[in-house]
Amino acid sequence: MRVEVINTGDELLLGRCVNTHLVYFGQRLFDVGLRVGRQISISDGDAIAPAVAEAFSRNDVVLITGGLGPTSDDLTRDAVAELLNLSMHESAEVVEAIRERLARRGREVSPEARRQALVPEGCVVLENPNGTAPGLYLPAVEGRNPHAFLLPGPPRELRPMVEAQILPRLREIVGKTAIPGVRHYKFFGMGESEVGRQLEEGIKIIPNLEYGYQVEMGNVNFRCIGDPVALAAADEIVREKLGDALVSTDESPLEKVVVEALAKRGETVATCESCTGGFIAHMLTNVSGSSAVLRRGYVTYANEAKTELVGVSAELIERHGAVSEEVAEAMVRGCLKASDDDWAIAVTGIAGPTGGSQEKPVGTVFIAVMGRGDSAPEVGRYCYPHERESFKVMVAKTAFDRLRRRLV
Amino acid sequence: MRVEVINTGDELLLGRCVNTHLVYFGQRLFDVGLRVGRQISISDGDAIAPAVAEAFSRNDVVLITGGLGPTSDDLTRDAVAELLNLSMHESAEVVEAIRERLARRGREVSPEARRQALVPEGCVVLENPNGTAPGLYLPAVEGRNPHAFLLPGPPRELRPMVEAQILPRLREIVGKTAIPGVRHYKFFGMGESEVGRQLEEGIKIIPNLEYGYQVEMGNVNFRCIGDPVALAAADEIVREKLGDALVSTDESPLEKVVVEALAKRGETVATCESCTGGFIAHMLTNVSGSSAVLRRGYVTYANEAKTELVGVSAELIERHGAVSEEVAEAMVRGCLKASDDDWAIAVTGIAGPTGGSQEKPVGTVFIAVMGRGDSAPEVGRYCYPHERESFKVMVAKTAFDRLRRRLV
Repeated sequence: MRVEVINTGDELLLGRCVNTHLVYFGQRLFDVGLRVGRQISISDGDAIAPAVAEAFSRNDVVLITGGLGPTSDDLTRDAVAELLNLSMHESAEVVEAIRERLARRGREVSPEARRQALVPEGCVVLENPNGTAPGLYLPAVEGRNPHAFLLPGPPRELRPMVEAQILPRLREIVGKTAIPGVRHYKFFGMGESEVGRQLEEGIKIIPNLEYGYQVEMGNVNFRCIGDPVALAAADEIVREKLGDALVSTDESPLEKVVVEALAKRGETVATCESCTGGFIAHMLTNVSGSSAVLRRGYVTYANEAKTELVGVSAELIERHGAVSEEVAEAMVRGCLKASDDDWAIAVTGIAGPTGGSQEKPVGTVFIAVMGRGDSAPEVGRYCYPHERESFKVMVAKTAFDRLRRRLV
Repeated sequence: MRVEVINTGDELLLGRCVNTHLVYFGQRLFDVGLRVGRQISISDGDAIAPAVAEAFSRNDVVLITGGLGPTSDDLTRDAVAELLNLSMHESAEVVEAIRERLARRGREVSPEARRQALVPEGCVVLENPNGTAPGLYLPAVEGRNPHAFLLPGPPRELRPMVEAQILPRLREIVGKTAIPGVRHYKFFGMGESEVGRQLEEGIKIIPNLEYGYQVEMGNVNFRCIGDPVALAAADEIVREKLGDALVSTDESPLEKVVVEALAKRGETVATCESCTGGFIAHMLTNVSGSSAVLRRGYVTYANEAKTELVGVSAELIERHGAVSEEVAEAMVRGCLKASDDDWAIAVTGIAGPTGGSQEKPVGTVFIAVMGRGDSAPEVGRYCYPHERESFKVMVAKTAFDRLRRRLV
């Protein structure tokens, strides 16, 4: 079934607010076996009629948000009625619901508010417990129109309406056709083309499997959609080819995988951050349950802080530079010594834009991980020549991935 | 001029990530005198060609995001070339740029990665300093195609490209038509309706002034668009009514204002964070030049860390609870004592979802700021009952605003 979502609203096109409708519809419709094929955002007013006409001509289900309110640019209802040549009548029930709602706030029903009670013939009214404008459902008529849902724009009005009144109808419309399964794989440590190179050959010959890649700051996400047989075949290839790089199969990010692995082992980690400036501790403490796992962190941005907080000798820093394997090693050892935690992560690098050299260009970073039982830390050298925030994300993810490989 | 934005990516339609492109384009294009008339999201793969054909037929400028990468579903380049019957050639320069980029990470150029160097005839290559896939610009040809920009999907690759290489071109395309001036005011410490109440009366009578409000996690942004006379009149009212709450007039966020104010005074700040888990230090170190200002930070997530790192007595924590005015005060004093910095910020609170009580519900936080010359710290109690990440943002912004008011 072909599904289109139309979002109306000048504020969307002027960039004054983020459109979260598509994330919501994409997920919820997928759950009832539908996939949004296309979504468009258009202005209020005159742009609505042609967009509705186009969408009606090529879809089985059309969901339209916005344009049901009381003001002069709220024209969705009119556009649909005109397109299909439907008469409109005022619903006494809707007028009453609006009257009650406004009365609770000490207001009367204005002629503008009353426009919201107009219902094109053939439409079912969808109650709106969270606003004055009701939704409308126009069932499909062969050769004339698809199933059309006209919905209020504000998410807090729209979502309860979708959950209670639209998803059940869509489930019926979709009927008992098999809903395909989906698997999400998250990888770290290789680029999209490398992941593709490893998987493509085996994956592309699996019948009835749809798949796609998505890059997300160092992670490559790989998505498979298909029947259980196809998914199982894909799963086998993914694990055989890329098992080491596989972070999660439930969309969990690295920091969550690490916190959960530590919690399961009853272990803790301390952080000692130079170039990431607290970001690694921040990411870990975003994970629910992290207080059992992270108890302290040091932000040792200046050299003196490295010396005073985790005992890196000033002479060592002088000799090798603050961004060096030796200092990363001393930081991670010092961090572990100063705490009674089981693991320590330490990072030191050049976030840029200045501070780089021929030998250590901007983006160079040393990442150290050490466990209490280790005789020596693992220190890796990387280069992430990104702007500062992306640099921090890449460094944090790399550190988490190194620890993850030790834990799982 | 008619402008359309096409966003490609199955992940958008499946609801796997929020589409932030439209917010970005809506705002930035507005600044050069363009308004986005329509935006569509479509799948990778086969859906691209018809969408591009439609968009080309009815617009003057078309911006397409995504589908330039190395995998088999990256088909934007091919769709445009096929539609307009353009041959493709491999750009030696782009191959070289990809090779260099991958070499820095110790990788070689695969045949897949090399696809990204294909350039349809007539296209100008737009350098991508933050990724392997370059952008492409196809200038308009009367009767054949509009100005078309093919851009990488990831925002951190796309945005720098737009700023440096596309907005200047669009400014030229739009020509010398008068672009009205714009002023951005950022406030902190009051809600949107309070800001509106203070400004509305004086602002609404200024001729030729368009203005709007936008709420952004604790900040209220106020935007004025108009000629210099109207902007000056608005500026006078803003400063008279809301001077204290005015954070910046150049869209600078609080952390940047604080870092710059400290740098100007030649002063430094240390942080001691419990509930924010490193986020405050992270925000400060995101600001360019912060190394002169932030030298150390403590993440004292566990009680023992508060005691060991900044000397908060275990007995004090026992008596008042870790989330208390007394502990916040002891943290900020201890942080200042342990460092030789000029200022200290300390925060302790209940991020939730658990840990709240009748007396101290989830979201309760104590924020302390102290200068080296102060006889006692300023400690404020706040409540931000948001989910964890928003809680951290609100706590950090409040801390920055308290320090800002001391500095400016």
